[in-house]
Amino acid sequence: RALKLGMMPADGIGKEVLPCAARVLQSTPGAPKFDFVTLPAGFEHFQKTGSALPDETVRVLREECDGAMFGSVSSPSHKVEGYSSPIVKLRKELDLYANIRPVVGVRGTRDDEKWVDTVIVRENTECLYIKSETIEEGPQGQVARAIRQITERASKRIGKKAFDVALAREALRSKAGTSATAGRGKVTVCHKSNVLSVTDGLFRTAVRGVYESDKKSAGGPGRYEGIDMDEQLVDSMVYRLFREPHVFDVVVAPNLYGDIISDGAAALVGSLGVVASVNAGDTFFMGEPVHGSAPDIAGQNKANPIASIRSAALLLEYMGYSDPALKIYKAVDDVIREGKYLTPDLQGTATTSECEEAILRALQK
Amino acid sequence: RALKLGMMPADGIGKEVLPCAARVLQSTPGAPKFDFVTLPAGFEHFQKTGSALPDETVRVLREECDGAMFGSVSSPSHKVEGYSSPIVKLRKELDLYANIRPVVGVRGTRDDEKWVDTVIVRENTECLYIKSETIEEGPQGQVARAIRQITERASKRIGKKAFDVALAREALRSKAGTSATAGRGKVTVCHKSNVLSVTDGLFRTAVRGVYESDKKSAGGPGRYEGIDMDEQLVDSMVYRLFREPHVFDVVVAPNLYGDIISDGAAALVGSLGVVASVNAGDTFFMGEPVHGSAPDIAGQNKANPIASIRSAALLLEYMGYSDPALKIYKAVDDVIREGKYLTPDLQGTATTSECEEAILRALQK
Ligand SMILES: CC(C)[C@H](C(=O)O)[C@@H](O)C(=O)O
Ligand SMILES: CC(C)[C@H](C(=O)O)[C@@H](O)C(=O)O
Repeated sequence: RALKLGMMPADGIGKEVLPCAARVLQSTPGAPKFDFVTLPAGFEHFQKTGSALPDETVRVLREECDGAMFGSVSSPSHKVEGYSSPIVKLRKELDLYANIRPVVGVRGTRDDEKWVDTVIVRENTECLYIKSETIEEGPQGQVARAIRQITERASKRIGKKAFDVALAREALRSKAGTSATAGRGKVTVCHKSNVLSVTDGLFRTAVRGVYESDKKSAGGPGRYEGIDMDEQLVDSMVYRLFREPHVFDVVVAPNLYGDIISDGAAALVGSLGVVASVNAGDTFFMGEPVHGSAPDIAGQNKANPIASIRSAALLLEYMGYSDPALKIYKAVDDVIREGKYLTPDLQGTATTSECEEAILRALQK
Repeated sequence: RALKLGMMPADGIGKEVLPCAARVLQSTPGAPKFDFVTLPAGFEHFQKTGSALPDETVRVLREECDGAMFGSVSSPSHKVEGYSSPIVKLRKELDLYANIRPVVGVRGTRDDEKWVDTVIVRENTECLYIKSETIEEGPQGQVARAIRQITERASKRIGKKAFDVALAREALRSKAGTSATAGRGKVTVCHKSNVLSVTDGLFRTAVRGVYESDKKSAGGPGRYEGIDMDEQLVDSMVYRLFREPHVFDVVVAPNLYGDIISDGAAALVGSLGVVASVNAGDTFFMGEPVHGSAPDIAGQNKANPIASIRSAALLLEYMGYSDPALKIYKAVDDVIREGKYLTPDLQGTATTSECEEAILRALQK
């Protein structure tokens, strides 16, 4: 039976790059068969119909799909009555509680200068993203308030996910014979508990607790034996990320910090146009490029399809098909290393289609 | 009459670098006379006395001082009963509502590679820094909440401050004959109103309102004529800051985003050890290096005194003594350019004292 994937191109360049990802999935040697179903979502859909995420889209994803891909949304920068970000809502509705964002340079390119090979594990359901906001008229003008929520449950499960990601990376590294480089096999807890001692204090304690109780409960070696843990305040994190990105392996962060630091990390690998993510629950996964809808270049065949193609590979990997996923990663790396078919964001002159075609060719080698 | 400055070295390297700043102030040709009074504050003081910011410190600052300098605080990373960050409290108690953080490279050094000349104007009294946090036991474990507050009043006044900073920079540039380079004379509003449409929506609208009402109300040219305005989501802001820092002139941000992006910007000028700030109210100012207390190198004569020395110059500038302030900036730039007396954070081998002495010598030239 073919795997059914719900495809939500949504807005702007999402509509150009998501089809590239679908074609790559279909052409990857060793990949399962796919059955793609396009589902409406996004700001443009909202403008046409009044709904940014139709119930039917969520129903089909829940009841019929094995996985999904999301493109990118255009967000109005001011409040539009009745509009709410469909991607934020989707993550919550499907309980895709982890947004896993690997930021990895390509060896043999200028990425080597500031080597980065890190995965940001972003909590995906709470923090300020619960969007509980109020506004009122006070004696000195308007007063707006938002609630930032951090729960023990969500912090523990994202902590566990981060240690599991670190473990999987360690396994891969030792399989590839490249383990034991400095600063590897480590989870860094990102927070700001020097100011937010209660909310970030809880996040910090919960994540550390996952690690420490693993140590204690284990009669023999614990599950996370061999993985280190440290922590970093979010402001210093951004600073150190620019200065010495190589010291970070897996970084786990509450929702908003995760959003910010992953964009920061993206700057280190040349372009947001190459950074992939997967929104992960326990059994359902949704690939999503980290970039936005880029209205300035939308519809011009200029967008970089790599972030979406890598997101498709991540989706495959998380769905349990790591061999075809590795083939896609390698084909993309080859094309970046060759440097002949790169889009303008990577200082190239290729179109979206030319870049996609180069990847399709590399896949067949 | 001498100017009375309240000096709070606080913790760690603050105790080493603040005295350097005082000596530089005293030795600057054309500077007023100073009368320094050392005031207790900090985590170490809390551990000894149970108070991180004695009432008497605040009273002396309020009633007797013309200005102040703050060093750096060590913060416990977990909640300590009764402890609350003295710097966060000071900013609020003295209503120092703007934290102004210039991040500027030095021409003729490797700073030229990624040229940055930007000022971050950080709102200093609200956002998540109101520290209104609660925690309760729920059916699935602990649930913590923090309130993020954004008011029209605070957003308007920080907006006004940002446009005034941009104006002052324009004036300085045209005086120096270097105006009209691309992307200059501009205020960028940093927010995340695509998710926080109410709180960040209010911040955005209030700051834009300052600019737009200036345009409308002016019969002739408005006060901010010649200054541009644009905006940037905080995640993209961090990304663009790494990639094309030269496009930013003045950036205005709510408290937490301001904290994060200024550390990010600091990475572009070699070290947090050179980045200065001034906490500004309407009539009272407090200089403060952006770096932390660096417990790992405290007491070893290794800390970079430049951030504190530049903060002292900023304080002078904001107190109305721009000529001696400019002398200090220039002396620091000369020492950085010469490169012989730099501390380890700038890949040098000089001690704190050697760096300070080099600056004192450069001041007399
Ligand atoms: C579009 C926006 C709501 C989203 C977010 O903040 O999560 C985006 O920035 C991302 O990183 O996926
Ligand atoms: C020490 C801490 C409370 C402080 C802050 O977050 O404001 C620091 O990071 C800063 O930037 O001044």
